[in-house]
Order: sequence, then structure tokens, then C-alpha cells
Amino acid sequence: MGMTMTQKILAVHAGRETVSAGELIEAQLDLVLGNDVTTPVALREFEKMGATEVFDRKKVVIVPDHFTPNKDIHSAEHCRQVREFAVDQDIENYFEVGEMGIEHALLPEKGLVVPGDVVIGADSHTCTYGALGAFSTGVGSTDMAAGMATGKTWFRVPEAQRFELTGKMQPWVTGKDVILHIIGMIGVDGARYQSMEFTGDGIANLGMDDRFTMANMAIEAGAKNGIFPVDEKTQAYVKEHAVKPHRVYEADKDAVYEKTHRIDLATIPLTVAFPHLPDNTRPVAEAGDVKIDQVVIGSCTNGRMDDLRMAAKILKGKKVAKNLRCIIFPGTQKIYLQAVREGLVEIFVEAGAVFSTPTCGPCLGGHMGILAKGERAVATTNRNFVGRMGHPESEVYLASPAVAAASALTGCISSPEEL
Amino acid sequence: MGMTMTQKILAVHAGRETVSAGELIEAQLDLVLGNDVTTPVALREFEKMGATEVFDRKKVVIVPDHFTPNKDIHSAEHCRQVREFAVDQDIENYFEVGEMGIEHALLPEKGLVVPGDVVIGADSHTCTYGALGAFSTGVGSTDMAAGMATGKTWFRVPEAQRFELTGKMQPWVTGKDVILHIIGMIGVDGARYQSMEFTGDGIANLGMDDRFTMANMAIEAGAKNGIFPVDEKTQAYVKEHAVKPHRVYEADKDAVYEKTHRIDLATIPLTVAFPHLPDNTRPVAEAGDVKIDQVVIGSCTNGRMDDLRMAAKILKGKKVAKNLRCIIFPGTQKIYLQAVREGLVEIFVEAGAVFSTPTCGPCLGGHMGILAKGERAVATTNRNFVGRMGHPESEVYLASPAVAAASALTGCISSPEEL
Repeated sequence: MGMTMTQKILAVHAGRETVSAGELIEAQLDLVLGNDVTTPVALREFEKMGATEVFDRKKVVIVPDHFTPNKDIHSAEHCRQVREFAVDQDIENYFEVGEMGIEHALLPEKGLVVPGDVVIGADSHTCTYGALGAFSTGVGSTDMAAGMATGKTWFRVPEAQRFELTGKMQPWVTGKDVILHIIGMIGVDGARYQSMEFTGDGIANLGMDDRFTMANMAIEAGAKNGIFPVDEKTQAYVKEHAVKPHRVYEADKDAVYEKTHRIDLATIPLTVAFPHLPDNTRPVAEAGDVKIDQVVIGSCTNGRMDDLRMAAKILKGKKVAKNLRCIIFPGTQKIYLQAVREGLVEIFVEAGAVFSTPTCGPCLGGHMGILAKGERAVATTNRNFVGRMGHPESEVYLASPAVAAASALTGCISSPEEL
Repeated sequence: MGMTMTQKILAVHAGRETVSAGELIEAQLDLVLGNDVTTPVALREFEKMGATEVFDRKKVVIVPDHFTPNKDIHSAEHCRQVREFAVDQDIENYFEVGEMGIEHALLPEKGLVVPGDVVIGADSHTCTYGALGAFSTGVGSTDMAAGMATGKTWFRVPEAQRFELTGKMQPWVTGKDVILHIIGMIGVDGARYQSMEFTGDGIANLGMDDRFTMANMAIEAGAKNGIFPVDEKTQAYVKEHAVKPHRVYEADKDAVYEKTHRIDLATIPLTVAFPHLPDNTRPVAEAGDVKIDQVVIGSCTNGRMDDLRMAAKILKGKKVAKNLRCIIFPGTQKIYLQAVREGLVEIFVEAGAVFSTPTCGPCLGGHMGILAKGERAVATTNRNFVGRMGHPESEVYLASPAVAAASALTGCISSPEEL
């Protein structure tokens, strides 16, 4: 019986010829990731385990990105603790504020994740790296601690669903619309503990940034991971960024999938997820008249160059709606710099938008753009749960950078086609 | 008996020929200012007074700058309240996040304060506008409320101290060093409830940004206000920015000063104020070996173009010290844009510094750069009280952007001359 792409990667990392869905295996880890929220908890567990040293100082990555630049004394203490650990253990990939970015934008950019890797991170959206043909998944802080100590972890080998993508997206439609559409189709538990394996010739029409966005949100359908085959675009990306060798895995022809979904990308509309779940999707054209108070463009989901370019194209020479806050935050300092160089930052500030330093801040209701009671935001982020961005009676509408930028101009949920 | 410059302005605004130090007068207000921290309190008082309308919707200015972009739900609620009031009262100069900046950098830039004005603001550093030859001073939220309702307020006419400045500063020495030096000389209560009137031919050698910095910190010597004569540089600034007519006042030749200090600018060294008071000053050369964790460049004190240019000159092509956070935040969106256009932002990000959207954030321990226990910051801000920037056991060292930037590179308090 053939294996899926995910199963192949896991088999090799378990030192096995084959693995089957449902099996428990122990796999070698290529990377263990933590941030300023989860690492302090992991460090307590690490100590409880009696561990004194990380398994490999080159394979543990720590990125203080959630409440940084330090939101308050509490977060400052967490960051101090994490920094001291990083210095003490001589962690090569500890990224200080100013040289960092949002973890899931940063790691691929730094070339720390490559095709074929097995990566765990104490953050839900660690599944982002599936865009590179790696197996990566979010874990709890205890698993992070064990991973840091031993370089191994247990997995239940996931079943898979195949998403066979064909065709080409309409103008303005992006990977964000595709993944929102898919989540709307299968539901927030539609792929629970399964792999979402994207296949089909439509993938060639998806840029790397589209793929990062899609893999990033696999968790929002309950998936263990999302994964893309390695093609020319992946190879070009890897060639530009990777700091280590990689290995390409392909699903067997006779791999077993629980379900196969065939999706013509040309049929996917601009899509928005209404409160309070990512599967509560509608075509933007059917959104109705939803007045908004804030627009957030950025995050590990949509804070990359393609996203910023798309937003800039729409905001250029225009002004955001009166009394609306438009907050744009790039994924990394490198993206920040590139956005400055391409003139995007000028466009944003001239339009009356805030261009922030990289931080997870507003996405998780952390800081830098929290909503008051009754306020509504259109956000390119990944979750619109109750109170996700602030007050329990605030609302988040998930959309692409194009829809978010258009909405910033009109003050209500809008399509760029309407402008 | 002659009047000081401050007294002359107050006399005219009280509809009087003359006023004398110590007298209580009622003065007409040209501008009443509030921010997101003080305005909500003022609004409660405004309501209690039975007021229903501001005295002049063009003369009330509201700038949500302290905990914005919204730090948390609490600050989001404050901002919402302030925004609703601004919309309800049709306040012309309400500045939303994205079109705003730090209030004391923003108001001069928008041309809302001109020479001869009387301005109150519910923020200590409202005294900044003295740089333009205006009388401006910080008040409590209750006074702000009364000012908003009536357009008038009571003042005790202040005595004055004269600071006669001669000569020209050494290279790297700025207005920040001058004012720190002066505060060190007279103490944090050295000018309590008095005017600090700057005079002398040395003023011609101070740029407008130097003067804003100096007037801004008058409150740190306990002064009611700091004020500069209107010269060619002021007139050029006013011509470029002002949106209303102005009137120039000069001190009488026989004005009475409690004290006159004569200061040769050439003798002022690069100066740093050690914890925990702004008058605890030392020459940077005598700072000793003080290791630091964070550098903050910005704020209403030092977030203007001259400040950013100075920092960029030092940071260009270099890297901030390992594991040190260097956070740079411009005073306004206009300054942000100009910094992008001049290539300064590229220099900062390349150096590994954070370039933030405008906010008062770190200066007051609000957000965006809070210190953990035992951490030390060199900051271009205005106050280094216990716990000002975070944990009660953290420390803030006040300095100029040049000294702060140099310190960011070395990781300890440094002079740019050492580099």
C-alpha cells in the first residue's frame, strides 16, 4: 500500500521503510521552534525533565515575536528568560527583536526549513512550512520541551485528504481565497488530524507566498499538516534561501487518501470568513453591507511580499476611510526592508495606514491593534474566533490582502473590483 | 516694571495691559489638547460640568498617541470613547491612528500652534510649543475639560528664570545635551512653576528641533513653561507649517527674572542623565562602563528629523550590539515618510533596529519596548523615574539620539566620538 507525501517523510525520519496511517512512530526532528509565549512554558518542562542541554544548538529556533517589542513587564520577563536560555545554550538561531520577524515568515526566509524536513513548533501555525514540501506541525510546550531535549517526538501517522487543484485563479483571487474557500467547504474540523495534501497542475499557478498562506491555514481545518509537492518554484525558493541540503519526497501513485477533492481554481471567488469561525465563508460579492473599524494586513498568514504588493496596488494614491485604522505589518525585517525599497511603505503611509515593525501583535489580540466592544475588523490573519482580536463583542472578518485593502478604502467589506 | 515674554503673552490673552508674577488671571485659550489617556477622564469631567459642546471645534485637538495602535481592550475602549466624542462634536483636529503622530511632534508640524499662542494640554510635555514662542503648559484632565467647555483657564502668572545662551555647541552635542545639562545644573525642581526663558545669541545656533527638545523638557526642571524668542528660524518654520496668523512677543528690556544663568554652549559636553531623575546628569565621558539591554530613539522629545538623521549617521553600515534591542520611533507619520524617503529607515533596519509607527509607547512604559527586571535602557525620552519604562528594578539613562545610537552599537553607554 502506497504512502502519502507526509507518510514518506515521516517514514524516513522514523528510520523505517514504510509507515501506515494510525501508527505511532518516533521521528527524528530537523527543527524545534518556540516563541516568547510558548518557550517559557517549555523551559519549565525542560527543567522538570532534568534536561540540561538542547539536543542540537543548531536545530532549536527561538523567535520572540508574539508580544514584542515587549508589550508589558510580563512579556518583558518572558523575553528575558528566553534570551538568557538562548545565550546560555548558545542557540544559533535565536532572533532578537530587530533581526527577527514573525516565526513562520522568518524560518523559510532564513532557509532553516527545506523540503523533506520534519519540524515541530510550539505554535499552531507551524504547519506553514508544508508549502516547502516539509512535514511541520504545531505542538504543545511540553512536546517542544521533549523535542528540544531529545531531538525526537512521537507522532500518530496521519491519514490524508487530497486537494487536486486545477486551472488558474481569477484576477485578485489569491491563495488566501483558495484556503478560505476550502475551509468553508470542509469545515473547521474537516481534516481533523489528517494531512491536507495539495496536488494537481493548478499548483503551478500558485506562487510560493500563496502556498505559505494555504499551508499556514491547514490547522484551521483541523489538519495535522498541509503539504505541497516540490516543483520548480519551490526549488527556486530553496536555492535562494536554504542553508542546508534538502530531499524531495513524492506521494506514491497508490497512496491512500480518505477523500479527494477536485477544485478548479478558476471557480474560486474572492472569499471572506465571517465571525466567528474560519469556515463561515461567503463570496465577498455576497458579504452585504458590513461597516468596519479596522483593517489588519500582515501576520504569518499574509505578511509576505506578494501580500504587501497586492495591498499597495490597491492603496496607491488613495486614502483609507475616515476614522478607520489600517494597520499593516510585514512578516520580517527583510520584508520590511524590501517594502521600503520597492516604495510600498511610502504608498501605505501616504494612504494613512500604519506600517509597523514585525510582530504577531494584533492577530492574536496581543497588542498593536486591539478591538473595542462592538468594533469590526477585516484581517488577513488566520482566526476569527470570539474575542480573537480584542473585546469578546468585537468581530473579525478574514480575507485576502486585496479584499482587506479595498475594505480599508471604502470602510466596509469590499472587493477591489468595486473600486 | 517690564514683563517677560511669557507674561506678555498671558497679559494679551487675559485682555490686560500688564500682568505681574504671582497674579491669578483668566486667559483665553488658542488650543486645548488631549490624548487617549487623559481625554477619557476629561470627558467625564466635561459631562459632570453639564457641558454639551466644546467652545470651538477648531481649537480642541485630540491625538490618541499613548497606547496606540491599541495596546489592549482597555486602551481600545478609551480610544473608541474619544473617537465617538470627536465625531459627535465634529472636532476638526482629531487625528486617527495612521494620520497621526505623537501629539507634541504633530501639533507644530500641522501648524496648529504658532508664536504668541496660549495652549493647554492634558499632558506634561505640552510645554514643547515654547520652542515656537508660544505659552504652552501641561494641565490635568479637569482643567482640560473646563478649557474645552469654556475656552478659558486660570493661571498664576509665573516668575521667570533667564537662560542666556552664547556660543556654539561642539560636534555631536545637541539641544538634548543642553537641556539635560541645565536640568542637572538647577535640579528637577530648579524652576518650579516658573518660566524658563531662553535668550542670547547662542539660540541662533540651535535648530528648531533642538529647541523643541529643550522646551519639551522644561517640565523636567519643574517649570510651568519653557520659551524661546521668535527668530528667523522660527519664522521659516511658521511660514512652512502654520495654518493661522501669529503674533510675536518679546520680553521687555526691564523684565524681571528670578535668576539669570549664562551658558556658553561650547562648554556643554555630551550628557547623560543616570537613573532615577533627569537631574542626575554626568558627561558621557564620565559614564563609566554601563552595559545596556535596550536603546530607544524617538518620543515627543527626540523623534524629529534632526534626531533621526543624527542616529542614522551613526548607525549607517553598522550593526547594533548582539541581543540588544534598538527601537526607533518617529514623532509623526510625516516624519516616518520623510525618513523613508531620505533612506534613513533602510539604514535603521539594515542595522538591526526596529522602526516603529509613531506612538508614545516605550517612553512611558506603555507598550512597544518595556523593560524586564534589571534591564537598562539608554533612551532619548524625557523621564527616567523608577519603573518609567517597565519593571521597578529597570533603569533608564536619558541621552541624545547621537549618544543613544552610539550606545546601541557598543552595548554600553558610549559617545559617538569613541566609535
